[in-house]
Amino acid sequence: MSSDAPPSQAPGTVRPGGRTARTRDAVRDAVLAGLVETGYPGLTVEYVAEHSGVHKTTLYRRWGGVEGLVADALELAGEDSWTPPDTGSLRGDLRALTQEILDSLGDPAGAAVPAAFIAAAFQSARAADALRAFYAERFARCTPLVERAAERGEVPSGTEPGALMRAVSAPLFFRLFISREPIDTADADQAADAALAAARAGVYTRPV
Amino acid sequence: MSSDAPPSQAPGTVRPGGRTARTRDAVRDAVLAGLVETGYPGLTVEYVAEHSGVHKTTLYRRWGGVEGLVADALELAGEDSWTPPDTGSLRGDLRALTQEILDSLGDPAGAAVPAAFIAAAFQSARAADALRAFYAERFARCTPLVERAAERGEVPSGTEPGALMRAVSAPLFFRLFISREPIDTADADQAADAALAAARAGVYTRPV
Repeated sequence: MSSDAPPSQAPGTVRPGGRTARTRDAVRDAVLAGLVETGYPGLTVEYVAEHSGVHKTTLYRRWGGVEGLVADALELAGEDSWTPPDTGSLRGDLRALTQEILDSLGDPAGAAVPAAFIAAAFQSARAADALRAFYAERFARCTPLVERAAERGEVPSGTEPGALMRAVSAPLFFRLFISREPIDTADADQAADAALAAARAGVYTRPV
Repeated sequence: MSSDAPPSQAPGTVRPGGRTARTRDAVRDAVLAGLVETGYPGLTVEYVAEHSGVHKTTLYRRWGGVEGLVADALELAGEDSWTPPDTGSLRGDLRALTQEILDSLGDPAGAAVPAAFIAAAFQSARAADALRAFYAERFARCTPLVERAAERGEVPSGTEPGALMRAVSAPLFFRLFISREPIDTADADQAADAALAAARAGVYTRPV
């Protein structure tokens, strides 16, 4: 799963917590299915109840409503064991990252859930907050990748992980969700190489 | 208005074409108001009729429905006289561009219409097509900016305008609409400087 795309559904994930966790997973699966099927505007608590087998009153009590359901599904999506690539060079790591983004978002089926989360954030402040938290946590996981690069002398020390991670992801997300253009391997490599050139030039160094 | 943000409403623009053009403008204004008020999911032909004073049957006949109305509003938004900055240096031009993006998208009121168009593209294929066309035309307008930079020796000849324009915009759009973070002048300058560093390194040169 990509570091930077809200992840696709990962059914069958073994999780601790017994019945409560299984309920949360079932609800999450139903929320994702609904987001893909109808989008956030069409998603209802009734749909989630029907597709999860969890009673509507339970959904309202535990999640409050559709906004809470979507925010929790995104929070749950962030609770995975993803770690950033470690190829031995920053160029290799950045190219691996953009390849992951291409793999997860490059085909419409894989992009459906991430796109639904991104779309939901336009309509729900809680979804936007959850998306912001998702990315903040994702970027934080990439700190070791950037620290290794600085230790190898590939980027100036003080290079800010979040800035570099946004930089490597942004051109691909821009094409897909803003200018509505397809992405391919050349785009992925270009995004990695651009982020690398800017990082080397010290653009992502925190002001001191 | 920014080169890269779908523009905000520009009421009072004088346009040729008499009654038909005035009707189209009134309809466009109503579509923009509706997009901001309810978002694409809530926009109805009834709303546009009520707010434009144009009869519903006329709207259906000329625009087909909500999708056509939104696509046409975006097309009309692209018919402006915007030209890219010409400051004498690529660094200056890129910083002027990111400052324009910051000015137009940095506050919620200014961002409302562009955000509504971007959100609509998640739900409407015609809106997505219109957004793609909008950006393609915007990027084409920036060709002279990149050619001037190549003539001054600031970037390799063959630097692809679209790639550079996406690069300079993408980090700001990513923050606003993907990772849901605010943008400020430091972010705008960083986006410009990163695009410049990558362009200088030849990352946006077309493969030959």
